[in-house]
Amino acid sequence: MSLELIKSLRATRFFTAAPVTRDQVTAVLEAARWAGSARNRQPWRFVVVRDRALLRGLSRLGAYAGHLAGAPVAILLAVDATLSTEDAEFDAGRAAQNLMLAAHELGLGTCPASFFPAANARAATGLAGLREPWRVRTGISLGHPAPPPPGTPAIPRGRRPLSDLVIELS
Amino acid sequence: MSLELIKSLRATRFFTAAPVTRDQVTAVLEAARWAGSARNRQPWRFVVVRDRALLRGLSRLGAYAGHLAGAPVAILLAVDATLSTEDAEFDAGRAAQNLMLAAHELGLGTCPASFFPAANARAATGLAGLREPWRVRTGISLGHPAPPPPGTPAIPRGRRPLSDLVIELS
Repeated sequence: MSLELIKSLRATRFFTAAPVTRDQVTAVLEAARWAGSARNRQPWRFVVVRDRALLRGLSRLGAYAGHLAGAPVAILLAVDATLSTEDAEFDAGRAAQNLMLAAHELGLGTCPASFFPAANARAATGLAGLREPWRVRTGISLGHPAPPPPGTPAIPRGRRPLSDLVIELS
Repeated sequence: MSLELIKSLRATRFFTAAPVTRDQVTAVLEAARWAGSARNRQPWRFVVVRDRALLRGLSRLGAYAGHLAGAPVAILLAVDATLSTEDAEFDAGRAAQNLMLAAHELGLGTCPASFFPAANARAATGLAGLREPWRVRTGISLGHPAPPPPGTPAIPRGRRPLSDLVIELS
């Protein structure tokens, strides 16, 4: 059921060697493509990366990007930063969520990585073969989930309760 | 099926007078609550607005926010802008997408509105009863879909094909 699908999506940081098919990649990109955006601008491009050396290079461009090195595929989210970057990032988050939910539905795992600081985002944009106005701040690992290796530090996965998060004005 | 649910979500700008129940609001907020965020910071609060005068006031705080005036409920997304606003907006987009997909699953319609320029976001934040570090840039109309009134200008709803959007690096 879809509400359960939405609520059960968690980040997957470790992957098996099982390949992700072209049809699976197309399915998750289709989901991303249909995301809404401000004035329907669709301010995005999706860069599919399977090359191991490139994935390793990308994995060094953010303090929490290491999982990219072990993923069979990554989807880089390029955003048009010409107009409001805040609008573009909000819309990119919508597309990313669609992509990750579609992967979850297919039994695949995902984890987003941020390329930061700004110099690393520029480097990721270059590795993606893009230049201004495109900017790559986010890469999403995609693959078949594997259990974390022994000794992996636990990462908090819970969420605050609604009572902490919701204000009812009337 | 969930992939169809994801692909069939469209913005709804007109609503019937049928009420949205508390259980429905809770269900869509549950979906938003479970969205992932950078370092699991959950940099958000959700403000539920049903007051007609307040909805009208909010509808004047953005060039495309008019639909809020006719919605039975709006959910304002307050984001902690202390750290990277780009990260926070990306994460807010993820939560918003979860919320809108959950509403779609329940047969409800949604439409996000941006409060801009910055003075309008500040005004929306004030109307939400919040202050720094919280910032309200987005409000989401929620209700039962109604057909657009006759004479409503058509809004483009299509999407670019994947061939325009995807770059395969290997």
